[in-house]
Amino acid sequence: MNNPITQKLHWDEAILSALREDISWEDVSTNAVMPVAKRGRAELLCKQDGVIAGLPVFARVFELLDESAEIVFHTEEGAEVKNGQLLAEVYGDIRALLSGERTALNYLQRMSGIATYTRATAKLLEGSRTKLLDTRKTTPNMRIFEKYAVKVGGGNNHRYNLSDGVLLKDNHIGAAGGVRQAIEAARAYAPFVRKIEVEVETLDQLREALDAGADIVMLDNMKGETLAQAVAMAKGRAETEVSGNVTKENIARLVSLGVDYISSGALTHSAPILDVSLKNLRPLE
Amino acid sequence: MNNPITQKLHWDEAILSALREDISWEDVSTNAVMPVAKRGRAELLCKQDGVIAGLPVFARVFELLDESAEIVFHTEEGAEVKNGQLLAEVYGDIRALLSGERTALNYLQRMSGIATYTRATAKLLEGSRTKLLDTRKTTPNMRIFEKYAVKVGGGNNHRYNLSDGVLLKDNHIGAAGGVRQAIEAARAYAPFVRKIEVEVETLDQLREALDAGADIVMLDNMKGETLAQAVAMAKGRAETEVSGNVTKENIARLVSLGVDYISSGALTHSAPILDVSLKNLRPLE
Amino acid sequence: MNNPITQKLHWDEAILSALREDISWEDVSTNAVMPVAKRGRAELLCKQDGVIAGLPVFARVFELLDESAEIVFHTEEGAEVKNGQLLAEVYGDIRALLSGERTALNYLQRMSGIATYTRATAKLLEGSRTKLLDTRKTTPNMRIFEKYAVKVGGGNNHRYNLSDGVLLKDNHIGAAGGVRQAIEAARAYAPFVRKIEVEVETLDQLREALDAGADIVMLDNMKGETLAQAVAMAKGRAETEVSGNVTKENIARLVSLGVDYISSGALTHSAPILDVSLKNLRPLE
Amino acid sequence: MNNPITQKLHWDEAILSALREDISWEDVSTNAVMPVAKRGRAELLCKQDGVIAGLPVFARVFELLDESAEIVFHTEEGAEVKNGQLLAEVYGDIRALLSGERTALNYLQRMSGIATYTRATAKLLEGSRTKLLDTRKTTPNMRIFEKYAVKVGGGNNHRYNLSDGVLLKDNHIGAAGGVRQAIEAARAYAPFVRKIEVEVETLDQLREALDAGADIVMLDNMKGETLAQAVAMAKGRAETEVSGNVTKENIARLVSLGVDYISSGALTHSAPILDVSLKNLRPLE
Amino acid sequence: MNNPITQKLHWDEAILSALREDISWEDVSTNAVMPVAKRGRAELLCKQDGVIAGLPVFARVFELLDESAEIVFHTEEGAEVKNGQLLAEVYGDIRALLSGERTALNYLQRMSGIATYTRATAKLLEGSRTKLLDTRKTTPNMRIFEKYAVKVGGGNNHRYNLSDGVLLKDNHIGAAGGVRQAIEAARAYAPFVRKIEVEVETLDQLREALDAGADIVMLDNMKGETLAQAVAMAKGRAETEVSGNVTKENIARLVSLGVDYISSGALTHSAPILDVSLKNLRPLE
Amino acid sequence: MNNPITQKLHWDEAILSALREDISWEDVSTNAVMPVAKRGRAELLCKQDGVIAGLPVFARVFELLDESAEIVFHTEEGAEVKNGQLLAEVYGDIRALLSGERTALNYLQRMSGIATYTRATAKLLEGSRTKLLDTRKTTPNMRIFEKYAVKVGGGNNHRYNLSDGVLLKDNHIGAAGGVRQAIEAARAYAPFVRKIEVEVETLDQLREALDAGADIVMLDNMKGETLAQAVAMAKGRAETEVSGNVTKENIARLVSLGVDYISSGALTHSAPILDVSLKNLRPLE
Repeated sequence: MNNPITQKLHWDEAILSALREDISWEDVSTNAVMPVAKRGRAELLCKQDGVIAGLPVFARVFELLDESAEIVFHTEEGAEVKNGQLLAEVYGDIRALLSGERTALNYLQRMSGIATYTRATAKLLEGSRTKLLDTRKTTPNMRIFEKYAVKVGGGNNHRYNLSDGVLLKDNHIGAAGGVRQAIEAARAYAPFVRKIEVEVETLDQLREALDAGADIVMLDNMKGETLAQAVAMAKGRAETEVSGNVTKENIARLVSLGVDYISSGALTHSAPILDVSLKNLRPLE
Repeated sequence: MNNPITQKLHWDEAILSALREDISWEDVSTNAVMPVAKRGRAELLCKQDGVIAGLPVFARVFELLDESAEIVFHTEEGAEVKNGQLLAEVYGDIRALLSGERTALNYLQRMSGIATYTRATAKLLEGSRTKLLDTRKTTPNMRIFEKYAVKVGGGNNHRYNLSDGVLLKDNHIGAAGGVRQAIEAARAYAPFVRKIEVEVETLDQLREALDAGADIVMLDNMKGETLAQAVAMAKGRAETEVSGNVTKENIARLVSLGVDYISSGALTHSAPILDVSLKNLRPLE
Repeated sequence: MNNPITQKLHWDEAILSALREDISWEDVSTNAVMPVAKRGRAELLCKQDGVIAGLPVFARVFELLDESAEIVFHTEEGAEVKNGQLLAEVYGDIRALLSGERTALNYLQRMSGIATYTRATAKLLEGSRTKLLDTRKTTPNMRIFEKYAVKVGGGNNHRYNLSDGVLLKDNHIGAAGGVRQAIEAARAYAPFVRKIEVEVETLDQLREALDAGADIVMLDNMKGETLAQAVAMAKGRAETEVSGNVTKENIARLVSLGVDYISSGALTHSAPILDVSLKNLRPLE
Repeated sequence: MNNPITQKLHWDEAILSALREDISWEDVSTNAVMPVAKRGRAELLCKQDGVIAGLPVFARVFELLDESAEIVFHTEEGAEVKNGQLLAEVYGDIRALLSGERTALNYLQRMSGIATYTRATAKLLEGSRTKLLDTRKTTPNMRIFEKYAVKVGGGNNHRYNLSDGVLLKDNHIGAAGGVRQAIEAARAYAPFVRKIEVEVETLDQLREALDAGADIVMLDNMKGETLAQAVAMAKGRAETEVSGNVTKENIARLVSLGVDYISSGALTHSAPILDVSLKNLRPLE
Repeated sequence: MNNPITQKLHWDEAILSALREDISWEDVSTNAVMPVAKRGRAELLCKQDGVIAGLPVFARVFELLDESAEIVFHTEEGAEVKNGQLLAEVYGDIRALLSGERTALNYLQRMSGIATYTRATAKLLEGSRTKLLDTRKTTPNMRIFEKYAVKVGGGNNHRYNLSDGVLLKDNHIGAAGGVRQAIEAARAYAPFVRKIEVEVETLDQLREALDAGADIVMLDNMKGETLAQAVAMAKGRAETEVSGNVTKENIARLVSLGVDYISSGALTHSAPILDVSLKNLRPLE
Repeated sequence: MNNPITQKLHWDEAILSALREDISWEDVSTNAVMPVAKRGRAELLCKQDGVIAGLPVFARVFELLDESAEIVFHTEEGAEVKNGQLLAEVYGDIRALLSGERTALNYLQRMSGIATYTRATAKLLEGSRTKLLDTRKTTPNMRIFEKYAVKVGGGNNHRYNLSDGVLLKDNHIGAAGGVRQAIEAARAYAPFVRKIEVEVETLDQLREALDAGADIVMLDNMKGETLAQAVAMAKGRAETEVSGNVTKENIARLVSLGVDYISSGALTHSAPILDVSLKNLRPLE
């Protein structure tokens, strides 16, 4: 999703809305201390080790406020950064630097937090053929930024939203009256470019799903021997996805079972931020 | 901020936008399994102990999709809830339940996470006169929900945004050329209903701020004896706010020093979610 | 324009935007004093003699905040009202009454001010065949309300905007290179349902306009004998409009000359408001 | 609020909306007389003595239509201008000059009218320590421009809106059940950066307000001796604001009593416009 | 309407919305094959003989995605183009070319289809004084583009919409209770710059309309001798418009009768597209 | 996509925008003839044989203008309808009937035109396993309605937009440097739920695509023996799609070759409308 050409279609709207959230009518403090145009410089500093993500968003905040703003990066998207490191110099109208600071940092700290957490999780899968996926458990109205951060961190994106792919979960099965009924309805309805994924909770449900022709099966809450049997049953008939709490221990086991995908809501819903800070603002000249 | 009359002015727009984020053109899975209107029931279950916040937002998601949706709550906003507890029953067109589920949960889990984290932090201040404050380190375009969740959790809101109150931070002081200059500019500029708060990093800066007539001083990164001196210097002349990492240990000390406010960005930027789930969807009749 | 069916297409957007202008995130005072739903009653009182306009807008403000709000009017749109008169009773959630009060009054006072001023001016034309017109000198983003108020006050609407009718003014003539060129270009370009109006400043220009086939001529800044000659020249060939400062004295003269239309920017740009007030809010048991 | 960096967040939206209000689909007259691009020049002339305000808005209208437009000002924001004075030269695509003219003038004439009226009122307070304030009696969806014009005219801004500051008026007191109850509720609820203002109508209410700890008291409709007593009672305990009709005579008296603030709705709701005009449009070569 | 200055007010919004319709969150294919910025060139080819319309819209799509995009046209708006002809070269970021291609072509093919169909129809009227008009039978939310294409094709625009001109049709007459009643109501209500047009189905209705002072009469579904009588009756009293299926044969007859206007919904609702294609995209060194 | 629960998220916005397109400020004709509320009835009549599609959109137009409007249908979505047939009775405020008529019909006639054309084309495939697909050659900002109409007509939807599925066309291949490069890039980049489709023009390209693992191949412009060879080569390795002009003759041949999908842009870009009309509006009582 790191495409500045089409990102403008969605990012700019979100960023402007966030700036308006922070400046309902005026930035009182800035207007008080800086009544005229004056060019300044500030430093983007890293306050914690991690993976940086969101640099184009950080830059765009200032550019939207001040066309002449320039951000000189000393790192790049997805890099591992260190506490104390100078990440960028920001040049522009001091009023843009002061008014955009918090919004720019709010994006950067949250996106970098997700990338950092994703990178750490993805490392546990290195060398295996199991892939790490995100989920739709994102912050409302932040999905485009959060799924992008997962990619920067080294994870993969599951479907973007309800329009993008079929995933029949417990409640769909409850509504349809059974696993088979749900899959058949989906096969009849869904556009031909879709794979069909279904969530199953028991081996019986899994058998029903495989017989009905599911392309991907999500093994929900299966553990121990049951899970091993499930993966074995699905092999060659459908891809397998395991969701749920991902810890060092259970990842090793999932990988050894040959699960195709591990999805983790925590990547987007519980990653703590990465601390970054804009410091040392000074007028130029 | 828990006022349904005026929330409609801002909440509905955000919720509809979040629903459109999740349904760009259609909900393929739901359209496949439920081609006609059928009334159903589902259960909102708690999967983790914590404080619940966002119930009106959860309900509003379904109401916006289906005017006839009814949510019967078995708990109330701000209550402490337990893993396994039935929080609510949701009745409505099954298609609304399926299509709204994730958006409703994404709001509820995040807002409850913030309330839970805030409640735990606020407990450390119980019995003291020191108050817990949030910051502007919120998720872009989520501030109205996140600051509300802080209140539900028992915290207090610092200024809402840059239009709402004057806070002169290090970069404002850098821009103005000094603490005194910044405060004088603010006093001259700001509307009369404002208090003026200034961030200081040294005792010298603090003295300058007090002499210039700051109403509130934020003592940034001061520790040990310096902090104690600073609080003593400010006593009777200005209110004191301490920001930064809040741990059990340093909170006890801050309270004993008589600090007026402790602000914590972590309340909104690093609270993990509270796990909640919509289960057991079944058609009625 | 008093059509509630199509007004919703434009009025609601404007009213909601005005409410958001007044409530950027919450109504602090109302949330403080009225934390729960309670039905109340308030009185709309007139504080000045005049013509009332905007009652449907006044009501709509409260209805948009509270579907159960009820406004019982004791007057009607366009009525002459007196200082001290009870214009309406407003019933609804007290929070809606408090939060909507100022926005509702801001519309009503301004629209009534325009209606009052228009009525007084229109009275000077009573009995004559000369008609009073408004102009495009309206408050930005308020035109739909202001032109409506002119009608309620007894005036007539000139074209709504630049898409609605051709009026070739001095600057168009300057751009086209002359009166004749401008009219010929307009005749060639404009949709067939249009009349073409042109502004002229001299008798020579007037002759050119009439010869080129203008449907309406606006006689700009003509006075005394010149104006009389101009009206006489145009008679039977084009309708005549006189714009500019309208006073009791010059209106009498314009009417006696048989001018068809008198337009006045002051109707919308300089009418003082009509003072109205919402008082005596009380909870209903 | 005169900050071009953040004004873009709110001004541009309003200006574009005003341009769309005036051009629903096309500018028929301009399209008729000027079918191709041609650069031109026009003059902004002052038609009345007063204070000019809104020059950046005037310029922005043309810039939004034509990036190459240039406005050469011969005066500056807040200057006293004279009938006949050349205020600016406007250069740009003639179609932009013709299509933007009315919108640009509508902003400028109204904002200058407010600044002119405010300047005249503020002069009456010169030399005293009493400050002139505006109110929320603004034109819907024009507040950001109107409050800015008040500042340019030399007035001060009261709170921007209902989110910005606590002001407990008669209806809040009616809702809360009394002055004391209202203030206590506000003190418990409002963010700590807020001062609390309350409107009182009698000396008893004033006493109650002072005892309950109001920061500012608005003395409503008090006259003669009662007002003098009220100001005396409040001295040293709270700041005092007097609202209402401001005339030369009563201002002198209010100043002599030592009232802190005088607020006037008329600044924004009843100031007549300042007449300005765009003339002499000519093609350049 | 071919005015790039004011078109931006309406065209850009529509084009951006169309781009967001095609790119809900990312362009997967483009992001896959072109992860970095690279300048490229593609050719706009004509695949069918016809009249080209919409070139500025075609260009604007790419400019909105990539400010550095350049479109070198080898034809001009309204030109007759041939199958196989190179219409333009498009230069820009390859990602903009790939992502904007379909949207740009969708506008161009539809607008050119309308222009082609209109030109062919207008040719049948050449040499006569009868004019060809479009209708309001346009595609929802496409009217501004479709009416513009009619003009490019050589047709004339009837009123733009319901705000722009009075046209009393069968259902208005049914609502008003008769032809005369409808015309009188319109004459009393409509702004003075309006002509009044009325649809009549019989000679009796026509007589009633002429007597009531209609400016234009639309002769609906009249044929043969009746039509001839109707045109004769209206001559000198009102302009005449005939609507309905326009074929070579009946057009000749309408022209010979001296009908003023022929309107055709088919121009916008049933014109097949003109096939155009973007081919031979190649990276530039 | 026929799901009224989630359609509201996208349909209402489009319909309101279309109504505002037709009523920029007021409906002059309706306001003239019907100044007060009066309930009426009108008839939706079919003027041409075909397939009806868009009845819920037709109804929604009136409901959005008048909550009390009732539409009594005498047919159902997707039914074959006949010239002269009464399709529905519309009851509601006469002003809503008059103001909504054209917008409601514009949707219905265009959507029914697409459904009619699609039904006719789909019939040619009856009994075969070849499926009919639409394309992205839709009218800008109408895709959600047009793709829905294709489904009602019995066609299938190809991907909704650029976010929904990977389709590597000639220009992607040009950008990537070859068929294999494009497919490999897509496989590495695209979310796992995607199938990958690629357009090929020669047998060599087809071989490259199959070897690189394309899921679906679109055989572009292949004819005669080449096409037969291509389908044979792909059998068992990838699904096949043929695009382009679909005539009775070539469809028979494509079906006999065993092509999986035939896609046709004409379904949405060149279907003529189905003529429908709202007649006989009369007041009730």
